[in-house]
Amino acid sequence: MPTLPDLADGYLMPADAQVRSIAIDLYESVADLPILSPHGHVSPRMISDDVPFSDPTDLLITHDHYVTRVLHSAGHELSSLGLGGGSQVAPRDVWRLFAANWHRYAGTASGYWLTRELETLFGITEELSLHNADELYDRIAAELWTPGFRPRALFERFRIEVLATTDDPLDDLSEHRALAADPTFSGRVLPTFRPDAYLDPDTPEFGVRIEQLLSATAQRTTFDGYLCALAERRAHFVENGAVSADHGVYEPFTADLDRSAAERLFSGAVRGQLDPDEARLFRGHMLMQMAGMSVEDGLVMTLHPGVRRNHHSETLQRFGPDMGHDIPVRTEYVENLRPLLQKYGVAPGFHLVLFTIDETTYSREIAPLAGFYPSVYIGAPWWFLDAPDAILRWRSSVTETAGFYRSSGFIDDTRAFCSIPARHDTSRRLDAAFLARLVHEGRVSLPMARRIAEDLVDTIPREVFKL
Amino acid sequence: MPTLPDLADGYLMPADAQVRSIAIDLYESVADLPILSPHGHVSPRMISDDVPFSDPTDLLITHDHYVTRVLHSAGHELSSLGLGGGSQVAPRDVWRLFAANWHRYAGTASGYWLTRELETLFGITEELSLHNADELYDRIAAELWTPGFRPRALFERFRIEVLATTDDPLDDLSEHRALAADPTFSGRVLPTFRPDAYLDPDTPEFGVRIEQLLSATAQRTTFDGYLCALAERRAHFVENGAVSADHGVYEPFTADLDRSAAERLFSGAVRGQLDPDEARLFRGHMLMQMAGMSVEDGLVMTLHPGVRRNHHSETLQRFGPDMGHDIPVRTEYVENLRPLLQKYGVAPGFHLVLFTIDETTYSREIAPLAGFYPSVYIGAPWWFLDAPDAILRWRSSVTETAGFYRSSGFIDDTRAFCSIPARHDTSRRLDAAFLARLVHEGRVSLPMARRIAEDLVDTIPREVFKL
Amino acid sequence: MPTLPDLADGYLMPADAQVRSIAIDLYESVADLPILSPHGHVSPRMISDDVPFSDPTDLLITHDHYVTRVLHSAGHELSSLGLGGGSQVAPRDVWRLFAANWHRYAGTASGYWLTRELETLFGITEELSLHNADELYDRIAAELWTPGFRPRALFERFRIEVLATTDDPLDDLSEHRALAADPTFSGRVLPTFRPDAYLDPDTPEFGVRIEQLLSATAQRTTFDGYLCALAERRAHFVENGAVSADHGVYEPFTADLDRSAAERLFSGAVRGQLDPDEARLFRGHMLMQMAGMSVEDGLVMTLHPGVRRNHHSETLQRFGPDMGHDIPVRTEYVENLRPLLQKYGVAPGFHLVLFTIDETTYSREIAPLAGFYPSVYIGAPWWFLDAPDAILRWRSSVTETAGFYRSSGFIDDTRAFCSIPARHDTSRRLDAAFLARLVHEGRVSLPMARRIAEDLVDTIPREVFKL
Repeated sequence: MPTLPDLADGYLMPADAQVRSIAIDLYESVADLPILSPHGHVSPRMISDDVPFSDPTDLLITHDHYVTRVLHSAGHELSSLGLGGGSQVAPRDVWRLFAANWHRYAGTASGYWLTRELETLFGITEELSLHNADELYDRIAAELWTPGFRPRALFERFRIEVLATTDDPLDDLSEHRALAADPTFSGRVLPTFRPDAYLDPDTPEFGVRIEQLLSATAQRTTFDGYLCALAERRAHFVENGAVSADHGVYEPFTADLDRSAAERLFSGAVRGQLDPDEARLFRGHMLMQMAGMSVEDGLVMTLHPGVRRNHHSETLQRFGPDMGHDIPVRTEYVENLRPLLQKYGVAPGFHLVLFTIDETTYSREIAPLAGFYPSVYIGAPWWFLDAPDAILRWRSSVTETAGFYRSSGFIDDTRAFCSIPARHDTSRRLDAAFLARLVHEGRVSLPMARRIAEDLVDTIPREVFKL
Repeated sequence: MPTLPDLADGYLMPADAQVRSIAIDLYESVADLPILSPHGHVSPRMISDDVPFSDPTDLLITHDHYVTRVLHSAGHELSSLGLGGGSQVAPRDVWRLFAANWHRYAGTASGYWLTRELETLFGITEELSLHNADELYDRIAAELWTPGFRPRALFERFRIEVLATTDDPLDDLSEHRALAADPTFSGRVLPTFRPDAYLDPDTPEFGVRIEQLLSATAQRTTFDGYLCALAERRAHFVENGAVSADHGVYEPFTADLDRSAAERLFSGAVRGQLDPDEARLFRGHMLMQMAGMSVEDGLVMTLHPGVRRNHHSETLQRFGPDMGHDIPVRTEYVENLRPLLQKYGVAPGFHLVLFTIDETTYSREIAPLAGFYPSVYIGAPWWFLDAPDAILRWRSSVTETAGFYRSSGFIDDTRAFCSIPARHDTSRRLDAAFLARLVHEGRVSLPMARRIAEDLVDTIPREVFKL
Repeated sequence: MPTLPDLADGYLMPADAQVRSIAIDLYESVADLPILSPHGHVSPRMISDDVPFSDPTDLLITHDHYVTRVLHSAGHELSSLGLGGGSQVAPRDVWRLFAANWHRYAGTASGYWLTRELETLFGITEELSLHNADELYDRIAAELWTPGFRPRALFERFRIEVLATTDDPLDDLSEHRALAADPTFSGRVLPTFRPDAYLDPDTPEFGVRIEQLLSATAQRTTFDGYLCALAERRAHFVENGAVSADHGVYEPFTADLDRSAAERLFSGAVRGQLDPDEARLFRGHMLMQMAGMSVEDGLVMTLHPGVRRNHHSETLQRFGPDMGHDIPVRTEYVENLRPLLQKYGVAPGFHLVLFTIDETTYSREIAPLAGFYPSVYIGAPWWFLDAPDAILRWRSSVTETAGFYRSSGFIDDTRAFCSIPARHDTSRRLDAAFLARLVHEGRVSLPMARRIAEDLVDTIPREVFKL
């Protein structure tokens, strides 16, 4: 029976024995530091209610569209994976399909995380296959209902110190408050203000959403009322521990309109009457406004541009969003962000973390911007780029221009709670591997590398995200 | 006298001894598997007529514009290389010039293939130079007229199982039929439907071509007649063993027009009266139509976009096309292909292989598309990117998002028949090197790596190209 | 106390012992060859007047905006670094701030060069910190006033054979003449014609500049007069030893206008009346004109496109240009340069060196262009990309398409005179490391690698820049 690779200290370590030994040394000095996760998509209710996971398929497959996507691309309809309303597919059958397709995950980020989770959480070091699918399903299922596998117990076992969730501006944040008030829970679970649907006139039912926002804050339907409503909800998030506001946009276009133009566009937006150029202008202006509010209220602004969401419309209609067909597109930061950076780029206390899934922007745009503007930080490789080779490409591309101290610290950005330790561990190993190479090439001294390795998982994310 | 590098098992293998040993092991398990070449530009007549090569210059230089291009860039006019009509240049003189410029090929893909060909076909391990040019010319020339160097003998020696050619839609495919019917020849030489000149209104004499197409198929000059004619010629290709239709376009723009708009554009196209926007729309609509026909007739659709053909007009006028000045341009797949993928992206049996020469699209566009759509396959690195470092960059960029099983298998795409084994061998070595690194880093188990190495040269191309 | 990395032969050398040994061997064969620096920004007056450096801050920090930029991004205002008019900041205080932020330079190109300079010029191998800041400041200051640290003594110690400066077209070049006439100085200090401000109608006070140009050359205010004036100033540069004309543009757009259109745009440009499209056309036409003049007078044309200069307007207003906020943008060469290459691409003696800071153009555009056009050379990695990993990425990306002999040789492009040896040494080490890998992988023979290593620092820059 084939066995999994040895997941001991050599995992992701450089080939050369000397470099490897430096890397392992650096890694060991940070391996057990607490996890700071200032951006992600874990449900706060899962932790506040401490709900057990129902079965292995629920835990590892169904809710991770980077896992289901692979099966879809192999020709298995999403409905056959238990997705879509009213599914009658047994979880065990989905698990078998997953196991039979295990070779398709080889070499992928999802495959790496799954392998690590199986090993560290369940002690599974065999390669998944149709032959052992049932046996492993049963082993995992048995564990899932033990007390040690409840979310809060895992939270502690994972050494998570801070976990940020992503939340609707109208969320009352009661779960966050409950967790903060709970004397039996010592972790920090912070909300994140994510206002995209309230800033983009192309959002379905935009006018209705705005009315809900205004009514929740007792504001009138004017541009001023709208701005006040947004500021008020931000304040609500700040009161409940939020440290950042997250913005997902198609392009990082920004514009600074005068008051009357903004008022006119707002009124068109609410009535669904903007043409595409006007809608773009409105979005650009609102990104400016969000930056201005961040300067005021101190919320770190994170920006994730460059995604064509829901590329395949039929899949969106049948299965809803987040089904693995959000596809990256070319992104431009230098000209698009110029109005924003002209106005706020050197504003004291303003932090703008730029994420990208367009690798071409690393050395060309993002590192040079972060190398000058004190507000700009280089976001860790996000999404498809949060994978071993991609992380090393990123570090190599941005560091020579901007150093280590303009990067954001690792961001797991995950919905898959159990993958958090594997993801942070991967990042720590790769930073150690990267630094070890620089040490061995005589570029950075070993003491400096030690300091950087530690700062990358501790000082830097605390500073960037004001933790 | 300088000698060539040792071309033993270490060729293209990783530096570290442990990784190297894994890589050699993986490579050896696939080194002798038959060659599947589902896309290329070898002349079917060369094989059907079994014509001997006339001289070393004819074999290695004159017909390979990636070789002549290097001499041109070094300041030697193409006419001095025997190109252009009525050349009086002796092949031996061109060979001498080539030998004197051998250092210019160092580090290039062409240089690597030529070196391997000289070594494996002629046992030449000396470095070419002006000093040994004549001697080596004579040695090669002597071999060329031996029976073992006739194309069919080489076809067998190379262990080619399938070789696809690239053919005009009006080709009668008689050579392919002759080869298929020949009991003394066991290889499969398959035609490929390449309709570009019949789909792009900007092709010189487009109207005349369309008339030829319609007259060959007895169709009327209507858009319906045109579609029927294309479908009929595709059917002719299918009957004669074709497995794919190949499309070379400037941009992969697709559009779905209604019948009357398409009819109107067709009629303008035939009369040469489309403006640039209309011509683009027509091309985009015809790419959609080709996809639709592929869904019907099962021909794999391969797409090679992103080339400014014949960049230097004077060279085109004097020497014709394919002179080494086709230059890649930036390419966009996500928005351009969206109409096509909306319509056919999950159509059963549809295969769309996306090639690129814009490396920026690997991780950003092509791998994510292939990671969701069951129809989309990641084409092997093509053209300038079919070179050792570029192949490793490609594998590294696409695998973490889409795994190994969404890639197409190696494509040599060559006109240079004798370079086929060197190209496939290069690909096998590099896949082994890439996998060996993943094994050594604990990312993929050795048994899994073995399976993948074999699937990459056998199962995968057979599945992708329906061989 | 932490010590710096060992800067012995292992610096920047590959990890694997066998590859490393080949690399060191190749490096040693070129390490001591003279420096050819055909493009840079050292002041000719500094050398002609042999002015001593005033203090360590003046030497290493204040005049290098890649150094001050890092402190600015860390939140230190430029005025606190002694920049801007009427600064009262003591150099020693700036030095202390620099030392306290030394970790921010780790991994950056500037950090590497500074480390090498401290070590090779001052024997400093300790890591900079607030603790040793004063002591090191004093040690350096003491050296600066010794005769061996005067610019001319350093010029000799650095083994510089040729150093090109960058000069305004109206410069009388008296320093260059003085140096050429000085029997006690054997180096060649060559001027470079840099006409950007006289070609771009968007330059502030463009009309005034043109009047100055015309009046300096006694030409009339017509397009013909303007062309004659430019040609006359180029001739003045050629007479004074110039070998190249350097062009920094936002985009490498070129256009070939007819005489009357050009005359009309010129007259609008002088009066400041062009709209953006007209200004672009004028710039494109003038780039064509410059190429035409290069064909005539033999000046090598170097092109540095793709930079949004002075991204943050407030910083420009307060501190002037060159403050570290010139940010690269996406650049397109294939279509933009086509008119120029159609006309002059194969013109005898024409040399066009293409630089880029958009890495995406390496394999896609620049290498393929240089692989065909005898006039086109691949510029060495410039600016942010003149850093170890970036240099290796560049070599890897362009070589497989265009070989080594279409690259330009190393260009330091620096204002920081004392960093010149460190920069050239870095390039030589990395080329040795790159070649050593190819040798070890059996791709290039050791004798060929030796030849290439030497040609890259000697034959190639001499040929490309006509030295």
